[in-house]
Amino acid sequence: MEMFNKYCFIGCDTDFEESNLVIFGAPFDGTCTFRPGSRFGPYKVRIESYGLETYSPYLNRDLEDYKVHDAGDLDLTFGNTFSALENIENFAKKIIAKNKKPLMIGGEHLVTLPVVKTVYGKYKDLIILHFDAHTDLRENYMGESLSHSTVIRRIWDFIGDDKIYQFGIRSGLKKEFLWAEKGGHTFINKFGYDKLSEIVSVIKDKPVYVTIDLDILDPSIFPGTGTPEPGGISFKNMLEILKTIDSLNIVGADVVELAPDYDPTGVSTAVASKVIRELMLVMQDF
Amino acid sequence: MEMFNKYCFIGCDTDFEESNLVIFGAPFDGTCTFRPGSRFGPYKVRIESYGLETYSPYLNRDLEDYKVHDAGDLDLTFGNTFSALENIENFAKKIIAKNKKPLMIGGEHLVTLPVVKTVYGKYKDLIILHFDAHTDLRENYMGESLSHSTVIRRIWDFIGDDKIYQFGIRSGLKKEFLWAEKGGHTFINKFGYDKLSEIVSVIKDKPVYVTIDLDILDPSIFPGTGTPEPGGISFKNMLEILKTIDSLNIVGADVVELAPDYDPTGVSTAVASKVIRELMLVMQDF
Amino acid sequence: MEMFNKYCFIGCDTDFEESNLVIFGAPFDGTCTFRPGSRFGPYKVRIESYGLETYSPYLNRDLEDYKVHDAGDLDLTFGNTFSALENIENFAKKIIAKNKKPLMIGGEHLVTLPVVKTVYGKYKDLIILHFDAHTDLRENYMGESLSHSTVIRRIWDFIGDDKIYQFGIRSGLKKEFLWAEKGGHTFINKFGYDKLSEIVSVIKDKPVYVTIDLDILDPSIFPGTGTPEPGGISFKNMLEILKTIDSLNIVGADVVELAPDYDPTGVSTAVASKVIRELMLVMQDF
Amino acid sequence: MEMFNKYCFIGCDTDFEESNLVIFGAPFDGTCTFRPGSRFGPYKVRIESYGLETYSPYLNRDLEDYKVHDAGDLDLTFGNTFSALENIENFAKKIIAKNKKPLMIGGEHLVTLPVVKTVYGKYKDLIILHFDAHTDLRENYMGESLSHSTVIRRIWDFIGDDKIYQFGIRSGLKKEFLWAEKGGHTFINKFGYDKLSEIVSVIKDKPVYVTIDLDILDPSIFPGTGTPEPGGISFKNMLEILKTIDSLNIVGADVVELAPDYDPTGVSTAVASKVIRELMLVMQDF
Amino acid sequence: MEMFNKYCFIGCDTDFEESNLVIFGAPFDGTCTFRPGSRFGPYKVRIESYGLETYSPYLNRDLEDYKVHDAGDLDLTFGNTFSALENIENFAKKIIAKNKKPLMIGGEHLVTLPVVKTVYGKYKDLIILHFDAHTDLRENYMGESLSHSTVIRRIWDFIGDDKIYQFGIRSGLKKEFLWAEKGGHTFINKFGYDKLSEIVSVIKDKPVYVTIDLDILDPSIFPGTGTPEPGGISFKNMLEILKTIDSLNIVGADVVELAPDYDPTGVSTAVASKVIRELMLVMQDF
Amino acid sequence: MEMFNKYCFIGCDTDFEESNLVIFGAPFDGTCTFRPGSRFGPYKVRIESYGLETYSPYLNRDLEDYKVHDAGDLDLTFGNTFSALENIENFAKKIIAKNKKPLMIGGEHLVTLPVVKTVYGKYKDLIILHFDAHTDLRENYMGESLSHSTVIRRIWDFIGDDKIYQFGIRSGLKKEFLWAEKGGHTFINKFGYDKLSEIVSVIKDKPVYVTIDLDILDPSIFPGTGTPEPGGISFKNMLEILKTIDSLNIVGADVVELAPDYDPTGVSTAVASKVIRELMLVMQDF
Repeated sequence: MEMFNKYCFIGCDTDFEESNLVIFGAPFDGTCTFRPGSRFGPYKVRIESYGLETYSPYLNRDLEDYKVHDAGDLDLTFGNTFSALENIENFAKKIIAKNKKPLMIGGEHLVTLPVVKTVYGKYKDLIILHFDAHTDLRENYMGESLSHSTVIRRIWDFIGDDKIYQFGIRSGLKKEFLWAEKGGHTFINKFGYDKLSEIVSVIKDKPVYVTIDLDILDPSIFPGTGTPEPGGISFKNMLEILKTIDSLNIVGADVVELAPDYDPTGVSTAVASKVIRELMLVMQDF
Repeated sequence: MEMFNKYCFIGCDTDFEESNLVIFGAPFDGTCTFRPGSRFGPYKVRIESYGLETYSPYLNRDLEDYKVHDAGDLDLTFGNTFSALENIENFAKKIIAKNKKPLMIGGEHLVTLPVVKTVYGKYKDLIILHFDAHTDLRENYMGESLSHSTVIRRIWDFIGDDKIYQFGIRSGLKKEFLWAEKGGHTFINKFGYDKLSEIVSVIKDKPVYVTIDLDILDPSIFPGTGTPEPGGISFKNMLEILKTIDSLNIVGADVVELAPDYDPTGVSTAVASKVIRELMLVMQDF
Repeated sequence: MEMFNKYCFIGCDTDFEESNLVIFGAPFDGTCTFRPGSRFGPYKVRIESYGLETYSPYLNRDLEDYKVHDAGDLDLTFGNTFSALENIENFAKKIIAKNKKPLMIGGEHLVTLPVVKTVYGKYKDLIILHFDAHTDLRENYMGESLSHSTVIRRIWDFIGDDKIYQFGIRSGLKKEFLWAEKGGHTFINKFGYDKLSEIVSVIKDKPVYVTIDLDILDPSIFPGTGTPEPGGISFKNMLEILKTIDSLNIVGADVVELAPDYDPTGVSTAVASKVIRELMLVMQDF
Repeated sequence: MEMFNKYCFIGCDTDFEESNLVIFGAPFDGTCTFRPGSRFGPYKVRIESYGLETYSPYLNRDLEDYKVHDAGDLDLTFGNTFSALENIENFAKKIIAKNKKPLMIGGEHLVTLPVVKTVYGKYKDLIILHFDAHTDLRENYMGESLSHSTVIRRIWDFIGDDKIYQFGIRSGLKKEFLWAEKGGHTFINKFGYDKLSEIVSVIKDKPVYVTIDLDILDPSIFPGTGTPEPGGISFKNMLEILKTIDSLNIVGADVVELAPDYDPTGVSTAVASKVIRELMLVMQDF
Repeated sequence: MEMFNKYCFIGCDTDFEESNLVIFGAPFDGTCTFRPGSRFGPYKVRIESYGLETYSPYLNRDLEDYKVHDAGDLDLTFGNTFSALENIENFAKKIIAKNKKPLMIGGEHLVTLPVVKTVYGKYKDLIILHFDAHTDLRENYMGESLSHSTVIRRIWDFIGDDKIYQFGIRSGLKKEFLWAEKGGHTFINKFGYDKLSEIVSVIKDKPVYVTIDLDILDPSIFPGTGTPEPGGISFKNMLEILKTIDSLNIVGADVVELAPDYDPTGVSTAVASKVIRELMLVMQDF
Repeated sequence: MEMFNKYCFIGCDTDFEESNLVIFGAPFDGTCTFRPGSRFGPYKVRIESYGLETYSPYLNRDLEDYKVHDAGDLDLTFGNTFSALENIENFAKKIIAKNKKPLMIGGEHLVTLPVVKTVYGKYKDLIILHFDAHTDLRENYMGESLSHSTVIRRIWDFIGDDKIYQFGIRSGLKKEFLWAEKGGHTFINKFGYDKLSEIVSVIKDKPVYVTIDLDILDPSIFPGTGTPEPGGISFKNMLEILKTIDSLNIVGADVVELAPDYDPTGVSTAVASKVIRELMLVMQDF
């Protein structure tokens, strides 16, 4: 008679101390303006990860061969954005302090900010690979400077020009595109990721942080998100992206914006779980 | 050929200046900790109000015989609770300044705070009738003093003892019940409203503010809310409550916590719309 | 090895010729103005009737002891109300011509008109018992005289005063109530059915047609309908109604307005199936 | 404090008189035979258009630079197809009389008939570009000549041979295909739109009416429709179509068959909103 | 910074050894014939228990004052009923051997069999209180003797006459009722529980096992179950039942048949969680 | 007046004796470990087949020109896998004995086993074409040898090496891939079907059995299944597969794993119905 709770991501049961990769949830969606609910993302991917195998036929690697710790979810307040971000930053620091890599499961995209800040504290030449449907480059949104729509702009505030590469972008204000393109502040690969290989070869010696807003995917395969944008990439495209960045030195990452309550078939959660499994396998050093 | 947009609550098309009752939406759910989405409440009740008639056979009154203005929804930020409450307070002041009565549609329960504050500014002997499943009397919640779980406590902070009457309460911390009961700060009618008639006769000469958290209703008839609590009152009970308070001098009111995305049948929205219609008819002076 | 299609209402497999009660579907919702889809009612109750037993512990009768034929669904056009009603009337005539009783499953309430017309052709002293949330007494609706909102008025056109008894009514225009009450054209038992026993004793020697708009039920137990109206009767109330009319000479009946696509839990269909089973048992002569 | 109702399509708030393009809803689905509910299409796209930006990165145009008036929805009867079509025709005439272009949001496909009739009244050499999964060429359907399944045939009745081009067609009766192909009455591009460029170059000097039945899209990205047909085109294909016809003189258009109640994730509505935004930008003259 | 996984039932975090009450899940629905999915019941009630407080205002007791251990879910095979039941029995024995009380969360009703068998091994004068919509007294079902429809009959096989009391029963075969009533094998309280107080006074000195099939509740408040039966008891009735049996010596219990995938609003799970909380508080000795 | 029940698959109303192809349902999902409900697949595809035409523009064939009998659904027990499989085998034998071809609609994948066994009894050189997301090659699963995860392995047990060709496989244990690839027991075409044409030319003189687990399709177009696996083939790919195998001598087939309750839009059922129509047309000899 075997008995257990299936409430840790499949294959991620290494102890914190022994692990080299730590996944954790940041169930916060407090600045979401359209459809909230990405707070429920982290627990759902854990539950549904048991529909997966630990083995990836794409990468021919098995999670059971690596040391990943699932730290559970942070307990975050709603209604006070500043304090929630602070909590996330504190936990990210704890991971970095132990020379482990963080992989955060959102929550809305704003949760990326404190983790990147923390990782940047260690790696001053950090490169950001940003996969998303949206530019997220607004100076502020409805008067607020901390928002899911401003997160990449806030990262630019401290990381500066020529460090941020954006892929899959298909929605934004005209002035956001102009700021990026004419100002030369970030690199935007509109609609897809055809420039990714080229960029990978340029940044191949740098530490890299990967932030994946799952709404880069087409809503046909990923409807369960705050602002679905038709015209996105397919799941096979996402696998191709992950293979392309496999050779990079990824020192931190996150996967955000799964809102499972807008996903009555459960397919979005299945997609998120598989993206996370593949990303964990890509983040391993060999 | 007739043509129009049905985007104003049915029968509420009087101009602001000519109206004596002003309804408006406060689509904010930023401190909701369980299931968010009450932000979508106001627009949904408007749309679905067209499944209603303007005539109430219960009260034998017709909305078309009164002067109600539907002012639409406030444009509120997420992520900054303080600024959202400020916006609501500003609009409430505008209504009160013109000697009209406000009827707000939430949103989460915290939006009640700025409206009560404004109404209290005019009526220092204001009485609060609070209908809810939850005590909402916490001193703070997850470190925050402004929360849907603290809203009645925040009102008590300025309105003081012997002014707040709570009905239908069936959930809360032990210490909240003790604070109310032993401390004598508020009156709690647990589970139902059997003391309501008696209280109505006591407060009958006072200005009254009515706040209805729709989760006082049983989730069988009102599932579409953040924290459904089985064991609530029926819709017929709610009609009885409204008849019982019909004689009072109601100077302001709100109806909060409809989260329509958790209401796939649309019944919760139908309920909310009818409660609002009846409450508007009860708020008229004859 | 047993093999069969479960696509006939449970226990209704008697041949047409041998049967004394014929059930059939009228999948038409062409004049529905709010939420369409009662066209899917008949097939759904058949499928789900297999969640029922044929035995009613309420009446202590078993469908297997009676001779009911399930004739399937009529093939009705949309876009041409007149022709759909004609098809229904033709089929009802076929049943009446063979001295069998019709029990129709709607579809929207307008489908009642041709069946009552046919039954009235045989029984000139016909009494109508009408169970509904809505008056359905408009002279016309959006310019049309044939509508789900006018159906009882259209029946009154030929059946006249003092023949129609309405129960459970809780929604309508003020002028509909006035027409009924002040004009004395129909008897309205508002909100419930407290006058039913009295009326049953008055009409006990007359042939009776029973039309049940399922939205008489509270939407807590019956959300799957075009215009849900909170404040309705419970399922136990419905059982009580059926027991109360058990002694009457019911010569025809219908059960209308199940819209299963607004019923994600399937409960409305379960309710409709059980109401139909009980009504079939009540329509048997002993 | 800013306050408004978001009940006009985003960026379409020019006054009627000043506008050159008028959008309006035709919430009619009275002849729909499978899954009804396209009546709810127009209001839903308005609400959800606020998930969009006014700027299109595909066309590099911004709705705010153009003059579009959103006239709201027509108030149409159900149960009387003829009278509904008459109402639509009357409104279309009003637009055409003012030398503005109509863009109608359905509703079922039959609503196209009165608008094309009106536009044809002005442009006798009108060309029809028809994008759809279905032929819609039946002579009649279940005895009715006015139906969503006959609408293109009814247009052919007055517009004649060599004027109608059909794309994406993947479903129909054998005899419909034969009538079109062997009779030479319409041009059918089966399954896709590979002949579109060629045809655009042929018709480039003619006035063109564009009718888009959204079920041309694959149900993976557009499930919310009456009759979903797997094997359709992708959203990116749809963008390509719109770019291809950008150079044409489009004098009227419609987008039909969104049935949002079959779209629990909201993705179909997001798609429809974006198709409408892009089509409005394509209909502008430069 | 606080961090934890909320994957244990709220307030049930006592160690196994120190606990006196052990809850565990039996996620098995292998013989379910209508709507499967009660396998997902146990994990769902855990997750949603965080919408509850640990304090019950009904009983004025707080879970935090007692010693309950949540042992998680058993890992059960599908397709082999015998082996699944064996696993459950083995675990129940482990609890009983340590002189703790078991409280199992189903799963389908058949999972009750091995637990009752185990408890009966210790208490030969065991009384069964059975709350359910269905008799569950079939000799066999579709040829199988082990089924959710036969479970109480299987218990009778070893426990014998005058030990089983059934409440709320409103569905079954005629012969099941006859077997119970005429054969005198079990006591059936049809439709409700009006005989419960009387029976409680009779059995007050005996060890009692309580099995609650949640479909005893009306589907208005509990739609998420395999076979919803309208006409059930309310949640308040259930609270009354629990108070009535509070004085008994309950030595084991289970709560079965929550199928959360048929519960899109989440209300059924909220109900189940609260029933379990109250039952745990009732099972404490004082 | 036309009247009928639409409860036979469209165009499949030939009598059993006159038919050459017999379709039947096997509504069994007893070993499903993740999301059950494929038991509801067969009846749903029948109902929804009426959204299809009998004519395929892809194959330019019409079901009405062939002789197909729809035998309805087998009545299978749950909880006893062995007996369910026996029932299926008995019915398959009846079809084979009459020299007709079987086409079974599942149900879970395990139902394939008894049909292949029966067909193999007649054709000892039988080839299996297996389309699926999963390997289904486990030796046993949770201790059971008969499971949806072991079904192809069980077929291999009697059919042996070099007879089974698997396409679309993208999920499985590492050891399953190794067993197939290194052991040379089956041929696995990972992720897609690029080797299909080549294999068709090799097996073109052999009798072929085709088993289609619909989860080979991408969940964007087919979410309604037990274990959705992103990264699958499109519906157009499926049409291409069917065209590629059109020339083969297909002597039996099945289409399994539609779980319609996880398909709120109905699209998965529409897909399954069309795959079945096309497969029936492909199975005809000319």
